Amino acid sequence: MSDPINPAASAPVGPASGSALDAEGFRRYGHDVIDWVADYLRDVSRYPVLPPVAPGDIRRRLPAVAPEHGEPMEAILRDYQEIILPGVTHWNHPRFFAYFPANNSGPSILGEILSAALGVNGMVWQSCPAATELEEVVMDWLRQLLDLPAPFRGVIQDTASTATLCALLCARERATGFDGNRAGCFGRGAPLRVYASTEAHSSVEKGVRIAGFGSENLVSVSTDASLAMDPGDLEARIQGDLAQGRRPCCVIATVGTTSSTALDPLGPIAEIAARHGLWMHVDAALAGSAALLPEKRHILAGVERVDSFSFNPHKWLFTNFDCSAFFCRHPETLIRTFAINPEYLKTAVDEQVTNYRDWGIALGRRFRALKLWFVLRQFGAEGLRARVREHLALAQEFRAWVESRPEFELLAPVPLNTVCFRYNPGGLGDEELERRNTRLLAAINASGRIFMTHTKLRGRYCLRVSIGQTQTHRADIQEAQETILTALASLGPGL
Amino acid sequence: MSDPINPAASAPVGPASGSALDAEGFRRYGHDVIDWVADYLRDVSRYPVLPPVAPGDIRRRLPAVAPEHGEPMEAILRDYQEIILPGVTHWNHPRFFAYFPANNSGPSILGEILSAALGVNGMVWQSCPAATELEEVVMDWLRQLLDLPAPFRGVIQDTASTATLCALLCARERATGFDGNRAGCFGRGAPLRVYASTEAHSSVEKGVRIAGFGSENLVSVSTDASLAMDPGDLEARIQGDLAQGRRPCCVIATVGTTSSTALDPLGPIAEIAARHGLWMHVDAALAGSAALLPEKRHILAGVERVDSFSFNPHKWLFTNFDCSAFFCRHPETLIRTFAINPEYLKTAVDEQVTNYRDWGIALGRRFRALKLWFVLRQFGAEGLRARVREHLALAQEFRAWVESRPEFELLAPVPLNTVCFRYNPGGLGDEELERRNTRLLAAINASGRIFMTHTKLRGRYCLRVSIGQTQTHRADIQEAQETILTALASLGPGL
Repeated sequence: MSDPINPAASAPVGPASGSALDAEGFRRYGHDVIDWVADYLRDVSRYPVLPPVAPGDIRRRLPAVAPEHGEPMEAILRDYQEIILPGVTHWNHPRFFAYFPANNSGPSILGEILSAALGVNGMVWQSCPAATELEEVVMDWLRQLLDLPAPFRGVIQDTASTATLCALLCARERATGFDGNRAGCFGRGAPLRVYASTEAHSSVEKGVRIAGFGSENLVSVSTDASLAMDPGDLEARIQGDLAQGRRPCCVIATVGTTSSTALDPLGPIAEIAARHGLWMHVDAALAGSAALLPEKRHILAGVERVDSFSFNPHKWLFTNFDCSAFFCRHPETLIRTFAINPEYLKTAVDEQVTNYRDWGIALGRRFRALKLWFVLRQFGAEGLRARVREHLALAQEFRAWVESRPEFELLAPVPLNTVCFRYNPGGLGDEELERRNTRLLAAINASGRIFMTHTKLRGRYCLRVSIGQTQTHRADIQEAQETILTALASLGPGL
Repeated sequence: MSDPINPAASAPVGPASGSALDAEGFRRYGHDVIDWVADYLRDVSRYPVLPPVAPGDIRRRLPAVAPEHGEPMEAILRDYQEIILPGVTHWNHPRFFAYFPANNSGPSILGEILSAALGVNGMVWQSCPAATELEEVVMDWLRQLLDLPAPFRGVIQDTASTATLCALLCARERATGFDGNRAGCFGRGAPLRVYASTEAHSSVEKGVRIAGFGSENLVSVSTDASLAMDPGDLEARIQGDLAQGRRPCCVIATVGTTSSTALDPLGPIAEIAARHGLWMHVDAALAGSAALLPEKRHILAGVERVDSFSFNPHKWLFTNFDCSAFFCRHPETLIRTFAINPEYLKTAVDEQVTNYRDWGIALGRRFRALKLWFVLRQFGAEGLRARVREHLALAQEFRAWVESRPEFELLAPVPLNTVCFRYNPGGLGDEELERRNTRLLAAINASGRIFMTHTKLRGRYCLRVSIGQTQTHRADIQEAQETILTALASLGPGL
């Protein structure tokens, strides 16, 4: 780097000595890696979805000590393929039906490559103006695509767990007049209460613990027949808490519960939240993407009255993990909750810009807006809608198949992309059905052809099929059905 | 995807219709992107380090609404170069001396590409066995490279902010017998107290707020002449709190403070922490990497007695942001602090494996171990040490230069990679010196040739030079010196 006219001449990208991987070395192996990724994306359906490995299988093939001397990139890439890849669960697989989708796409990966190369930390505007301003723009694009209220301002968080925690902290601070931040919670006043349905995600309880509310102050609100929050029960529980001198603080509604994509009714809940001065957060981690479709936008009816909202482009919007979109109606409350302004982070333009470090928990921030921008532009709104619409149609086809077969029992409504059901030949109790369905699920997943997971709804063990991977099409649903029937047959009449 | 024999034939990677970016499209643009990145890494020193943009410059060049129809990748990549890049602060630049390094390398970027392509969520072992087991292995490699205690178990967090918050939560839960998680903090007992030096990072206060301790219960411990925590003052403050019925809970020592890389003495602090039953966490976010060198390992003397420790490979270990290494002596306490076990995440092997979701705040987890593994192998331990050692030597050269020039005043010792100084022609008060150094810093950064930031030490405004980017070599230090002198001269005698 000593020649200012031609600084490129000897710039080492890797170590200065020995095994340096300079720009040309990066170029060479970069092309190899791109070809591997392209092949992988093309061929991913040839892999077993769930790798056939036992605990420790991967670890025991890796040295216990770091190498003293640098190794050639060829060896590292070979070990990646020979040691790591056999232990990978293929979330990109078109027959990944487990948990929730974490779908991905070419433009997203391209954006992530550039983000990794730039390596910026967008903690303040000055530390990368483009990262801050692009994030402001793409978050507003998303806000419009979901028809969220105009006052909402957006910020990208890593995951919905973090978004939920941010909402809980805003709620705590608003309720205490920012006394929680100042004086802390110990010894201060009556418990603050948080309300969520029995079907809310585990991150709600985790956030309630982290923020100092305590699990005992997370009130589980009953659900109706569709597994959605019962607003009547919410009101009753708030009244009960008030009668006992507790302080109602926050309600978290879920649009698309993890187990069955149940839809809490935002309007009636917002009415109650407003009456009692609760912060209302909406966790739409998976299902938010469905609101892109005019015919599904009703799932967010009432969102115009809530305080904060999050959904994950990394789940069902073709943006590789992680990328969670968090919107807040009161950015001033969010900022006041999180702002710390040490001298070494002050800049001359702090009054004119967004410094996203004050919009969440971690100071450091990756340039996630880049991949999201690539996805939104390369798909276009209609491209996104087309894929989400196809997934929703496939889920209805799968539901109809379950309902058409006497040996299966549908266990929840299917408003979106997730089907909960069980094998139920009749005449057996829930415990015996759980044993049999557990064995059935193990046999299905051992096939490597599909990967499904389970949940429990009202104590009943369910098999879940969650549809939303980028490459999932009708043939994959048909293969899932065949795989389930084959596993059932292989287990025999006693299962 | 309908042909099971040749599933690759038509796999769409992007949208199903219209502007689909299939595997071959990804391959084509992927090669373009790799070439761009290789050129960028080669030519990064030709860019202004700090972009000459004003607030809003980038935003106003971007459409206010997302495109309805998909756009060609060519247009997106062109806009990336024409609109985004001019607003990027170049953290990779060899003359980026601001904040702290966030260095990067070819093998790290290659690892991140593969991680983005796999798109796995390593929340539990089953959701990607290789991600979990590789993380266990590389974290133990790091533990050995830094000569950390054998009982320490490691986990990758996004940033040191999160690692500090995790430590604070463990401390809170251990001190309350896990009553904080259960019953919450409101109305429960006397305040818990947290101790850190006046030079501790802002994330300590942020974590103290989030976890419900309250800023008023963060006790600022005095520092000695080297800006390191004074253990005598720590003991005195603990005694004072005990006398007032408060509950000492946690001490956070900093190895390498953000402002000046001051080194809190771990041994004496650990002695006090043990006597009073405090959880002791070490924040070595930047400086931990220096402990790779035998001649610098003394900065961690006493770490064998602490409860938790973190440092950031994304700062000074050639691993692109984000990647923070968090080690804990008591994984059972960490897990008990964070574990939530909903039905839909249970697996048959939960008793036999590490489920990293219970080792931190967010449920979802990127496959960060992959890039770290690539870096550790491609550099080798000696390659890492060589680069860190060069940075340390360059910092001493810069310090000597400051000391050799009468118009500059060194404002802190230089134990590691950061030099704090100011222009001080003599005869001026601190306020006037702050005004002049503020102008000097603005002129230096406006040159685009280098980027430095400032801090305050004991109320005195300092210019900071933090040395640690991958491509930084002696010529860059010399150019920094020339730039500073040129800026000084251009401002004239009155500055």
